Amino acid sequence: MSLSASFNLNIRLPSNCYKPASNLISAFPSSLSITNSQKYECPTFLSPPADQSVAAIIFGDGSHSRLYPLTKRRSEGAIPISGNYRLIDAVVSNCINSSITKIYALTQFNSTSLNSHLSRAYSGARLGKEGFVEVIAAYQSPEDQDWFQGTADAIRRCLWVLEEYPVVEFLVLPGYHLYKMDYQKLIEAHRNSKADITVSVLSSSRDEVLGFGIFKVNTQSQVIDFRENPEMDSSKSMSVKNSVKFDDIAHHKFPSMGIYVINKNIMRKLLMEYFPFANDLKSEVIPGAISLGMKIRAYQFDGYWEDMRSIGAYYRANMESTRKTNNAYNSFYDIDSPVYTLPRNLPPTLITDAVITNSVIGDGCILSKCMIKGTVVGMRTRVGEGAIIEDSIIMGSDTYQMNNVQNGAGEERGISIPVGIGEGSHIRKAIIDKNARIGRNVLIINRDNVQEGDNEENGYIISGGIVIILRSAVIPDGSIF
Amino acid sequence: MSLSASFNLNIRLPSNCYKPASNLISAFPSSLSITNSQKYECPTFLSPPADQSVAAIIFGDGSHSRLYPLTKRRSEGAIPISGNYRLIDAVVSNCINSSITKIYALTQFNSTSLNSHLSRAYSGARLGKEGFVEVIAAYQSPEDQDWFQGTADAIRRCLWVLEEYPVVEFLVLPGYHLYKMDYQKLIEAHRNSKADITVSVLSSSRDEVLGFGIFKVNTQSQVIDFRENPEMDSSKSMSVKNSVKFDDIAHHKFPSMGIYVINKNIMRKLLMEYFPFANDLKSEVIPGAISLGMKIRAYQFDGYWEDMRSIGAYYRANMESTRKTNNAYNSFYDIDSPVYTLPRNLPPTLITDAVITNSVIGDGCILSKCMIKGTVVGMRTRVGEGAIIEDSIIMGSDTYQMNNVQNGAGEERGISIPVGIGEGSHIRKAIIDKNARIGRNVLIINRDNVQEGDNEENGYIISGGIVIILRSAVIPDGSIF
Amino acid sequence: MSLSASFNLNIRLPSNCYKPASNLISAFPSSLSITNSQKYECPTFLSPPADQSVAAIIFGDGSHSRLYPLTKRRSEGAIPISGNYRLIDAVVSNCINSSITKIYALTQFNSTSLNSHLSRAYSGARLGKEGFVEVIAAYQSPEDQDWFQGTADAIRRCLWVLEEYPVVEFLVLPGYHLYKMDYQKLIEAHRNSKADITVSVLSSSRDEVLGFGIFKVNTQSQVIDFRENPEMDSSKSMSVKNSVKFDDIAHHKFPSMGIYVINKNIMRKLLMEYFPFANDLKSEVIPGAISLGMKIRAYQFDGYWEDMRSIGAYYRANMESTRKTNNAYNSFYDIDSPVYTLPRNLPPTLITDAVITNSVIGDGCILSKCMIKGTVVGMRTRVGEGAIIEDSIIMGSDTYQMNNVQNGAGEERGISIPVGIGEGSHIRKAIIDKNARIGRNVLIINRDNVQEGDNEENGYIISGGIVIILRSAVIPDGSIF
Amino acid sequence: MSLSASFNLNIRLPSNCYKPASNLISAFPSSLSITNSQKYECPTFLSPPADQSVAAIIFGDGSHSRLYPLTKRRSEGAIPISGNYRLIDAVVSNCINSSITKIYALTQFNSTSLNSHLSRAYSGARLGKEGFVEVIAAYQSPEDQDWFQGTADAIRRCLWVLEEYPVVEFLVLPGYHLYKMDYQKLIEAHRNSKADITVSVLSSSRDEVLGFGIFKVNTQSQVIDFRENPEMDSSKSMSVKNSVKFDDIAHHKFPSMGIYVINKNIMRKLLMEYFPFANDLKSEVIPGAISLGMKIRAYQFDGYWEDMRSIGAYYRANMESTRKTNNAYNSFYDIDSPVYTLPRNLPPTLITDAVITNSVIGDGCILSKCMIKGTVVGMRTRVGEGAIIEDSIIMGSDTYQMNNVQNGAGEERGISIPVGIGEGSHIRKAIIDKNARIGRNVLIINRDNVQEGDNEENGYIISGGIVIILRSAVIPDGSIF
Repeated sequence: MSLSASFNLNIRLPSNCYKPASNLISAFPSSLSITNSQKYECPTFLSPPADQSVAAIIFGDGSHSRLYPLTKRRSEGAIPISGNYRLIDAVVSNCINSSITKIYALTQFNSTSLNSHLSRAYSGARLGKEGFVEVIAAYQSPEDQDWFQGTADAIRRCLWVLEEYPVVEFLVLPGYHLYKMDYQKLIEAHRNSKADITVSVLSSSRDEVLGFGIFKVNTQSQVIDFRENPEMDSSKSMSVKNSVKFDDIAHHKFPSMGIYVINKNIMRKLLMEYFPFANDLKSEVIPGAISLGMKIRAYQFDGYWEDMRSIGAYYRANMESTRKTNNAYNSFYDIDSPVYTLPRNLPPTLITDAVITNSVIGDGCILSKCMIKGTVVGMRTRVGEGAIIEDSIIMGSDTYQMNNVQNGAGEERGISIPVGIGEGSHIRKAIIDKNARIGRNVLIINRDNVQEGDNEENGYIISGGIVIILRSAVIPDGSIF
Repeated sequence: MSLSASFNLNIRLPSNCYKPASNLISAFPSSLSITNSQKYECPTFLSPPADQSVAAIIFGDGSHSRLYPLTKRRSEGAIPISGNYRLIDAVVSNCINSSITKIYALTQFNSTSLNSHLSRAYSGARLGKEGFVEVIAAYQSPEDQDWFQGTADAIRRCLWVLEEYPVVEFLVLPGYHLYKMDYQKLIEAHRNSKADITVSVLSSSRDEVLGFGIFKVNTQSQVIDFRENPEMDSSKSMSVKNSVKFDDIAHHKFPSMGIYVINKNIMRKLLMEYFPFANDLKSEVIPGAISLGMKIRAYQFDGYWEDMRSIGAYYRANMESTRKTNNAYNSFYDIDSPVYTLPRNLPPTLITDAVITNSVIGDGCILSKCMIKGTVVGMRTRVGEGAIIEDSIIMGSDTYQMNNVQNGAGEERGISIPVGIGEGSHIRKAIIDKNARIGRNVLIINRDNVQEGDNEENGYIISGGIVIILRSAVIPDGSIF
Repeated sequence: MSLSASFNLNIRLPSNCYKPASNLISAFPSSLSITNSQKYECPTFLSPPADQSVAAIIFGDGSHSRLYPLTKRRSEGAIPISGNYRLIDAVVSNCINSSITKIYALTQFNSTSLNSHLSRAYSGARLGKEGFVEVIAAYQSPEDQDWFQGTADAIRRCLWVLEEYPVVEFLVLPGYHLYKMDYQKLIEAHRNSKADITVSVLSSSRDEVLGFGIFKVNTQSQVIDFRENPEMDSSKSMSVKNSVKFDDIAHHKFPSMGIYVINKNIMRKLLMEYFPFANDLKSEVIPGAISLGMKIRAYQFDGYWEDMRSIGAYYRANMESTRKTNNAYNSFYDIDSPVYTLPRNLPPTLITDAVITNSVIGDGCILSKCMIKGTVVGMRTRVGEGAIIEDSIIMGSDTYQMNNVQNGAGEERGISIPVGIGEGSHIRKAIIDKNARIGRNVLIINRDNVQEGDNEENGYIISGGIVIILRSAVIPDGSIF
Repeated sequence: MSLSASFNLNIRLPSNCYKPASNLISAFPSSLSITNSQKYECPTFLSPPADQSVAAIIFGDGSHSRLYPLTKRRSEGAIPISGNYRLIDAVVSNCINSSITKIYALTQFNSTSLNSHLSRAYSGARLGKEGFVEVIAAYQSPEDQDWFQGTADAIRRCLWVLEEYPVVEFLVLPGYHLYKMDYQKLIEAHRNSKADITVSVLSSSRDEVLGFGIFKVNTQSQVIDFRENPEMDSSKSMSVKNSVKFDDIAHHKFPSMGIYVINKNIMRKLLMEYFPFANDLKSEVIPGAISLGMKIRAYQFDGYWEDMRSIGAYYRANMESTRKTNNAYNSFYDIDSPVYTLPRNLPPTLITDAVITNSVIGDGCILSKCMIKGTVVGMRTRVGEGAIIEDSIIMGSDTYQMNNVQNGAGEERGISIPVGIGEGSHIRKAIIDKNARIGRNVLIINRDNVQEGDNEENGYIISGGIVIILRSAVIPDGSIF
């Protein structure tokens, strides 16, 4: 169709985009059992458009976090990553880049910093004339005095808010995963297949243990069974009727990503009529829908994806962001689908004399004569002369401290160590949480090769061999551990 | 001082403003025992300025609301008043007009609509370079899985957030009162008297029953005792040591407004050291501070003030806003201290043929041939031909409904009554909550003169003789009650 | 197609929307020579979407304004209309509602108030992640020290800015017209017809004299000739080669709306190569393109449309907005395509005792015992007791004036008349510009039935029998005219 | 005064701040002839406060720019400096940090990018409830069809806008100077001395040639004469009556900074009554005011100050920002008076392997194996492998270019060189304007040591020995110059 060809050039798209809708449908691989999200490189334009017909429901915190002490004062979605961002920015940016601009974020665990981040980073702007990111914190009401009892309970209790706009589908998203996905393709596959529910699954090549369970899918992409991950939760029995063995030859099993597209009417029926007492979407409502014989399709995703709910995964994902590799999360420098966050107004990084290798340097750092290797350096990080930092995550600081004058809190406690990394210190394979004050000539190198250790009263914890310095911790001059 | 005189004219101030600081101090009436907030008409400029040295802590919901059903889906602070506003706007605007721009709003009851309102109405703009309105919803943390157990508990658990800026004083404010007050004068009196705590009290002329208890004050404006309001809570005994009879001749008693200025260090000591298990500020911490002999001053306020936590008070305050009287809350048309709210973008009110008396008409109404008297008409209200509305509060609608086409929700339920007041209906002394659909020829006149009645299943409740139509209720054509 | 049908209900669209693209193309009436924009009630979703592929170029002021004295301090686009809006809001809102969010506004005449309005009303929000309203005021550069010499010259000199995003088409729009149009349908027709340029024309039923000339169109909707409106500019000869008589039987002539869709590459060629010295788009470049044999299509529009560049048209359009009629500009109360403007924060209108007929009442007015009929009452208008206002436009006030205390400017000049309409005054068929001070018992009734009169030194002008009180004019008590 | 002392600690101020007003006045050095702005380190709190009583008038472009080609497409205020900023940000930030939030920016030369920057960077937020940055571009009106003829003419023609708020003083500021100044101290000195006009001057230690002329000041800080800088403009004779020789023993001469505090009433009288035809403030109105015997005071400033209107000064100021020295402009890392700019949302800088010395690195750069020394690296700069950059200013890029795919403009012209610095290139003492494309193995080292050279057709100019690569220029692989 020559019409489309004439402007492909101008908007930097390959010439095979903008196929007529019928082609897109026929291109849907009916012989291959699963939709492959990576096939089409062209943007998708839904009709009705996503900004009017889809509402995203993001869960800002998971129930079984293993990210302590990073979650001591914040929910998982609020943890800083890759220097300039918060974890939830990845999912919210996926929504915005997929033109989904009605976004509800449900929280109840340590929600303050997440609420603050979301309301400042996404208020009004960027989201178009009817877009919003609305934080719904757990609340008491005349009808219910309890906390949210699970994802299904949370959605049920907020349904009166979630239904305020006449959307067609809800898109349920965990807020603590790192990946880049065009949700419009997912919605399109959902609409084309006329499914009640579409679940997003990882391609079978993944063999890692996953927390969202496993779907069994037939050759028509239809979900026919679900089981919780046995290693994760071996005690739970399958709640699905007609449970079948997963080693059937004709079927495939795929790990769930915890992402569900659910038609609005179906959501209401599932939560209010069929399973009015179910608390959890994953383990109760979705298996229940399967058992009811609803039309549930699987949508396969095979790009980079990381569940950040362990110190190991969090550390690994940050490390990957320091390298230009093909298999990492690479959205940060992507002009067409950037990652959004709270806009800042910081000065450029001032470097006196540094040798820097495979690292990312956040905004407004002050780096003296130092060596930085394989490290994520967060905003406003100060590194003193002679410091060496390797394979670490420095989250940075919330404010500048000038002339070594302490702020009120520090001064009162008689602290003279400024925020940042002190002169001559050496840090290796560590996570330094925000506003920590590392003194001079400190060695954070896990000298004794401890794998797990709790030293919270001295300002650190060791998890999987990674030393984690707590938020605002003070590490005296000359400390070694 | 002629310097000041030279620009008084230009900034529309009486010529006796801008006295030197020493005058202000001497003007503080030491012979009269209580500072009178109404004496000075000039703005106050604190040093250090309020925007850097004071943080406001607003409680968005009270513990014993008698505003049901208005609070069925919202906290008290989110209730619409006077056509265009939410109740909490009065207190937040007091803060902004007093240059207090670090504002924390603590909520846990039906917090969703309050959070949404505050984050959209006050995000970024208006609050200057370091100002914010930050909503802190109740949350679970590793240390505490419970809801806030009271005002003191809420502040204690959020202290790590509240202390993030180096302020000097906290200003604790209930969010459901209607009044206009320059908090800078309160802070100034507090600083001048070098008090630990300053409490704001109503002038003694008030004899109404008040929920915040009564302070006994000596001739030096010093608070020497507190007692809970006996009618409100007769079971509680005084927790103050050395309790004295309040009929002593040398002392005065004043009703508390629930407003406290507390020095930051004093707040920390009270909550963490002296009374680490106290849940309530009013009944536990403040009396405790008195008993410890802390320096607590009373600051008298004698302007318009209304505690909105009853249907009667809410109705009365709205009625007063429809009249140009001197003793009403009159901030709305005050150029120097306006009331802020969510900025809107509504069309002008379109009036076909109306006789309107002593009423306020919100933005974007559509009024056909009708008669409106003594009524608050909220945003986007549609009034049909021949309707008569008297002495009522119409909260209005969240959206327009064109051509009588129903939105999804209504249509599904087979409703053909549009949002608004139907043709030929007659409403008297009623509160019509948002998005209600009053049919044609409906009579809402409390025909049987019921004082209290619960008819929630039919969409209304009667309280104190006032008929309250519930949010989104549908009242069929020809209904009479 | 049952897929679409399933969500039509939910998004309030008639069931015949969302036809496949092929249907839309075949529905394009090839037998009828002209596309009728009013045929389809369903939204259009362009591919590539309008927000990425179209840039609007709005001209904020016309060259031959007859709106003086309304344009004494403002450009035409900045004139207040219908109580709450500025004239340019209609066109900018058309853009936003058509998902065109890259908007350039070119100005040079009295641009200050227009710049201020646009940058405050449309900054950031509402326009999505890459949207903007950018004001380009005439400027001097090293290459050119002159003012813009016309629409073509202005676009040519700004081409380096206008081309910064890789759009496909430019949409050229006059900023002083009042109409509601889905530009996406215009763009769609343009793309479907593979035209170089598409011009929007009015249906032939209009016989009014129009300032944008007349296009002659053949049965294939192709533009084959243009002529300037003879009454408007009889001296100019046709600049089009092969000029033909317009009374040919086989052709139709349609008045131009001054709206052009021009492919980006065509725009560059026309301005830089073919007609590098042309100043005007309408009378030089478009006729030139016709003469070059470019493919130029006509797109017919037959809704409400009003060129506001005369006092008569301006008065008429405001009057029409006070009535619920079918043939008026009715976008204000349209939920799906609202008119945007600067968000406000005004109190509700306070009415003591008023009889109001066929009028619109802007936000925050204070109306005492008065009678208002067929009148547009702008924001913050104060009407004194006993006043009568008929068939007039009151633009309102920029601020409140409390207690009759004058602001600096007034006081200095010894004025004691407050802003607004004084007690006992009677106003008929007048336009009262902003911040005017009408004294008590003033009669503005055009007593002598003057048609044209200049009395600017006394604060008014009469044009077409309409009395126009100038901005900030002071009309003393008891004046009669 | 112990009251103030009690909270000094908390807000990080030295204990000698917050002296009573009388002390401040007596501290004003009457024996020393000139106020020294650097004496007091404490913040100043004016009464009435600056945000209500002062309006700043910033001139965004100077009349005699020597910054070409940096000003080819932008006014001086819009030139990028120090990686993340625009030049005008320094002055606007001074205003905001001095609580002056009513800011008018007057422009007419290449105003587009300045307008765009100011309206996006300072819209609404940060400026408090009544603050704004309003751009007033030169415009035509019924009264005047000309461009602004000078600073006095510009203010005169905009007076109707500038007077809309009841301010007390105007603060006139050039927008292209780099310095940090608390204007509140200047206003305070002005008010304390009851002057009509206060001019800010540089301390006598400066001996550089300055474009704003020289004031002669007596021992009471009173300005008694002015002369244009003879080197700059030798032809102009002094317009001041009673001109005296400047080598009088009893007097001092100080270079003007072009900064004037002028009482609002005085401004109106000077421009409308005394000198209604004067075009220039500096050379006509100020000397005229002296000749009229007005009370004009000098206020001495002795901090860092740089007039950026030459390539040399611009280069020097940028170089100084790369070093932590005491005599440079050091506001960027100052927590109490930060420099504001357009908030961004860029990823952290990704560094593969770099040795960086004495440089500042803007947000979101991508640096491969390279060496950077003494260089300002602007936002989104890409540096290829093996590149060496010394003593240069790289302004960076407006967008990312991924995978070497060209954007529309480049592609059309057949350019295959991506934006940024190509592999193996070596750059020394150069300014690389925005979006330039430096190929591989390019040598920009001013090989022939040219001092001045115009090679604009090849994309560069040499000025003062500094090579300036033009905006969006393309430098082919292997070029040497």
